[in-house]
Amino acid sequence: MIHQGATIWLTGLSGSGKSTIANMLAGRLRESGAKVEVLDGDVIRTNLSRGLGFSKEDRDINIRRIGFVCGLLSRNGVIAIAAAISPYAQVRREVRATTTNFVEVFTDCEFEKLVARDVKGLYKKALAGEIKNFTGVSDPYETPEHADVRIDSGTQTPEESTDTVWNYLAEAGLIRS
Amino acid sequence: MIHQGATIWLTGLSGSGKSTIANMLAGRLRESGAKVEVLDGDVIRTNLSRGLGFSKEDRDINIRRIGFVCGLLSRNGVIAIAAAISPYAQVRREVRATTTNFVEVFTDCEFEKLVARDVKGLYKKALAGEIKNFTGVSDPYETPEHADVRIDSGTQTPEESTDTVWNYLAEAGLIRS
Repeated sequence: MIHQGATIWLTGLSGSGKSTIANMLAGRLRESGAKVEVLDGDVIRTNLSRGLGFSKEDRDINIRRIGFVCGLLSRNGVIAIAAAISPYAQVRREVRATTTNFVEVFTDCEFEKLVARDVKGLYKKALAGEIKNFTGVSDPYETPEHADVRIDSGTQTPEESTDTVWNYLAEAGLIRS
Repeated sequence: MIHQGATIWLTGLSGSGKSTIANMLAGRLRESGAKVEVLDGDVIRTNLSRGLGFSKEDRDINIRRIGFVCGLLSRNGVIAIAAAISPYAQVRREVRATTTNFVEVFTDCEFEKLVARDVKGLYKKALAGEIKNFTGVSDPYETPEHADVRIDSGTQTPEESTDTVWNYLAEAGLIRS
């Protein structure tokens, strides 16, 4: 497979499937011989952003750092896949402007389903007021208005969502058999 | 030119020529068609490490972040050139262990020459006690004992120093015509 460097940016609420889809997509791309790196928001907080909190300012700094690394990778021919809530539209636009072949993937899911699923038990705590600055509960999420790919992870399986992104990359000419 | 991913790590005191050599080497490699990124300590402090100071702990965190990015780039076939004082041996060893084809380049220079040259006027201030935690004056620099390349930037020109690194890369098989 031939591929171009790209920044595939998964944005969405906690539990909406960003990391699952990112890793599934990365696995399939790697199997096809592509150079791929996954930059997971939680992992990056350990490696690049320890000490930052969840205020708007700190979230924006965290996203800029992930964007900086995605920029370096994607301009050197690597497919960088970021999975980060990235709730603010302005900084997402900034990252789009400073990276190569930016693809915004919005992992959408009905709020009620996220709460019902609550894989990490975070929504229960957040709704009980035990977690401050929790996106979607006590902190805003600015819905992407012009995402390149929208996934409904409330109804699609991760495999179907991964297919959707894959097909977009193929149609955009970013990957080619 | 064919090249492998590598992490070329320039360590040495302020004013010893790290950035100059890094940029000269990057230019020559790029002209030869290589994928290259320069990670300059001062630039990285803006992009990845704003808010960090110059305590041992903060310096180590800064170096680990540069190392993390060099690791991502070098394992994807990019030549990552870092220019950072990186005064502590332990964290340099850590970076060596976590990156691909790590080449430690020690830009050595007699202290008296650095003070006499004092391009940025920092040594004068540091010696007058106006800058705290200044490496080589009020903060330690742990000299690399087993650097892969040692440059004497007190006697060599930047061109000669760049040649020295280039020749090492060629002999190590990391670049090939």
